[in-house]
Amino acid sequence: MISARSVWEDIVKIRERSPLVHNITNFVVMNNTANALLALGASPVMAHADEEVEEMVGNCAALVINIGTLSAAWVGAMEKAMLRARERGVPVVLDPVGVGATGYRSRTAGGLLGTAAVRIIRGNASEISALVSSGTKMKGVDSSVSSDSASGFAHTLSGMYGCVVSLSGETDYIVQGDRRVCIRNGHPMMPRVTGLGCSASALSAAFAAVNEDAFAAAAHAMAVMGIAGELAAREAKGPGSFQVHFLDALYGLRVEDIENLLRIDEN
Amino acid sequence: MISARSVWEDIVKIRERSPLVHNITNFVVMNNTANALLALGASPVMAHADEEVEEMVGNCAALVINIGTLSAAWVGAMEKAMLRARERGVPVVLDPVGVGATGYRSRTAGGLLGTAAVRIIRGNASEISALVSSGTKMKGVDSSVSSDSASGFAHTLSGMYGCVVSLSGETDYIVQGDRRVCIRNGHPMMPRVTGLGCSASALSAAFAAVNEDAFAAAAHAMAVMGIAGELAAREAKGPGSFQVHFLDALYGLRVEDIENLLRIDEN
Amino acid sequence: MISARSVWEDIVKIRERSPLVHNITNFVVMNNTANALLALGASPVMAHADEEVEEMVGNCAALVINIGTLSAAWVGAMEKAMLRARERGVPVVLDPVGVGATGYRSRTAGGLLGTAAVRIIRGNASEISALVSSGTKMKGVDSSVSSDSASGFAHTLSGMYGCVVSLSGETDYIVQGDRRVCIRNGHPMMPRVTGLGCSASALSAAFAAVNEDAFAAAAHAMAVMGIAGELAAREAKGPGSFQVHFLDALYGLRVEDIENLLRIDEN
Repeated sequence: MISARSVWEDIVKIRERSPLVHNITNFVVMNNTANALLALGASPVMAHADEEVEEMVGNCAALVINIGTLSAAWVGAMEKAMLRARERGVPVVLDPVGVGATGYRSRTAGGLLGTAAVRIIRGNASEISALVSSGTKMKGVDSSVSSDSASGFAHTLSGMYGCVVSLSGETDYIVQGDRRVCIRNGHPMMPRVTGLGCSASALSAAFAAVNEDAFAAAAHAMAVMGIAGELAAREAKGPGSFQVHFLDALYGLRVEDIENLLRIDEN
Repeated sequence: MISARSVWEDIVKIRERSPLVHNITNFVVMNNTANALLALGASPVMAHADEEVEEMVGNCAALVINIGTLSAAWVGAMEKAMLRARERGVPVVLDPVGVGATGYRSRTAGGLLGTAAVRIIRGNASEISALVSSGTKMKGVDSSVSSDSASGFAHTLSGMYGCVVSLSGETDYIVQGDRRVCIRNGHPMMPRVTGLGCSASALSAAFAAVNEDAFAAAAHAMAVMGIAGELAAREAKGPGSFQVHFLDALYGLRVEDIENLLRIDEN
Repeated sequence: MISARSVWEDIVKIRERSPLVHNITNFVVMNNTANALLALGASPVMAHADEEVEEMVGNCAALVINIGTLSAAWVGAMEKAMLRARERGVPVVLDPVGVGATGYRSRTAGGLLGTAAVRIIRGNASEISALVSSGTKMKGVDSSVSSDSASGFAHTLSGMYGCVVSLSGETDYIVQGDRRVCIRNGHPMMPRVTGLGCSASALSAAFAAVNEDAFAAAAHAMAVMGIAGELAAREAKGPGSFQVHFLDALYGLRVEDIENLLRIDEN
């Protein structure tokens, strides 16, 4: 049962345990992602060398695979890291950035999903649709599909890979098989800041590191993203100051913020 | 004719159409560049893999090639992307970061300019000088030449490659053949923030995506950079807060801001 | 003798000379590092291509080698750059990010230290310990050892490589052979912002570019980091605004700030 209380309990665990989250992610967002994890209370590490990814996965509590600026050498490291994560039972979050925009991204995402099970797939409506239906064409990395219309694809995708699908948008849909929860937090300025989707994936990994129920972890992460976004929007004058206040809000989150702001339902 | 009105009309088009701008750019500025494009209303994508650059160019409305942290693999992708852009008639903006600092950068910039026509070259005074005269030696990536003394080189360079040259500095000179316009907006704190030159190149591409006249597009981009910089400087206490306010200013630009602040002349 | 006066004299030199600092560093922090150097008054350049690193070192006043997101191609470029720096007498600062977390990082750091002499090694307590004792295991890139307990290792390491060791933490220890100085500036929010350790290394290089006494340069850099951190913390509401105010503080540092805030002793 997802509730303000369950969200808060996981935040407290992250702050206490400071789980190591290993990110193999894109160049655009590495800095934001690291800062979002630190602000929440987790410990980020970024490492992509073939020579060390398996050993680094050996120390981490969760693994993020993000294909935003992929290339062949990095994909090889992603596969190695995922296989080692499977061996150790480390939860893996896949962020299929821009899948559908090029055949290479679609093939790579498909290949990674075939390499080892992932616990959570987190993407926008275009990305989730493209993973299910090759008829969905993305323009770039920003979604051109509404999250409502894509929520059916999220259920299909969850069934295909037996994982949680976290579909972010104006409403976030977190689904696993027949389970579904909708989170209606967030702010319209969020798509105007680069890398907030990638931060959502990284926070999903931090929550998965402290909560064995990946469905709850994914929902808690999206609740925290949306609530921190609403708190940031109160102070922000544009996307520049939004980013700054967003990190401050993540860092300073209080139980009352979650209780007062969480908008969640099962439909 | 460049005027507050022509600047504003292009801003409105960018906000309405949200053109996809494909960036093959350097690691230092990817995040800033993406955020500047989003704040203006464009849609950025960063992709450099050999396997996908051509397909990504197939979807985009403009292409930015920036050699800030170049290496052999990326240069190959840049060439592929430029050739595909030529086929599709997609405008290309080249930012020859640090050309003149090393022979490798000079050879690479020369090679790229020989690969396919570019619509706009945007650089600082040292970079524009170095592309014309091998006698110009850069210390690093910051200009050691005044923009006034380099404006003659801008005309020469424009003639050599039949493109617009956008020379940024205390005064910005936008030239194409015998056409020239000077933009006297901006603020002395701008060179103290990394990546604002690269953002200027990215915004030039966004304007070129909505305006077939590359001379006007380049001038509009520099006007917007300078005006957003002046608005940011009113609030900033240093280069850290300047960056934040700069993105907020880009996002919130109003027609009055352009009308009140634009300083442009033909000399 | 390290004093407010000696710190200030070096700041003035950096602002006057704007030394070119060449960074071969990690993807996560390139932007922060460049901005920290610009805010202080130095001129940063990032370049890692095999084809140009030696020529770029030929122009620079100091070189930073940071292994945060290392891979084989970059390590080769680091070695070339270090050998050229040795030829020219350019000071080198090594930041062994995450050494101890994987065997690859340990081997790479060892190999680099064997390639050419470095002037300053700057790391956190876990990293400094791991360079001396293979028994120190890091979890990721954040320190799990107190700087007090690691200060003995700093003396050992300094002896091993005949260089200055700058060990940052709640107290910073700068040691060279039997010399030692402790700097007690800084703020608890600093480890919650990614890349501040890397910025400390980059600023150490800027100070080494204007001061032949590497011990003094390293101490001056840590004093400036800590004092700018304290000034930033007065204004910050969290790690997001901390970063912004930190750059503003670096940019605006006055001699009174150093005189009023510096906390330094020889124990």
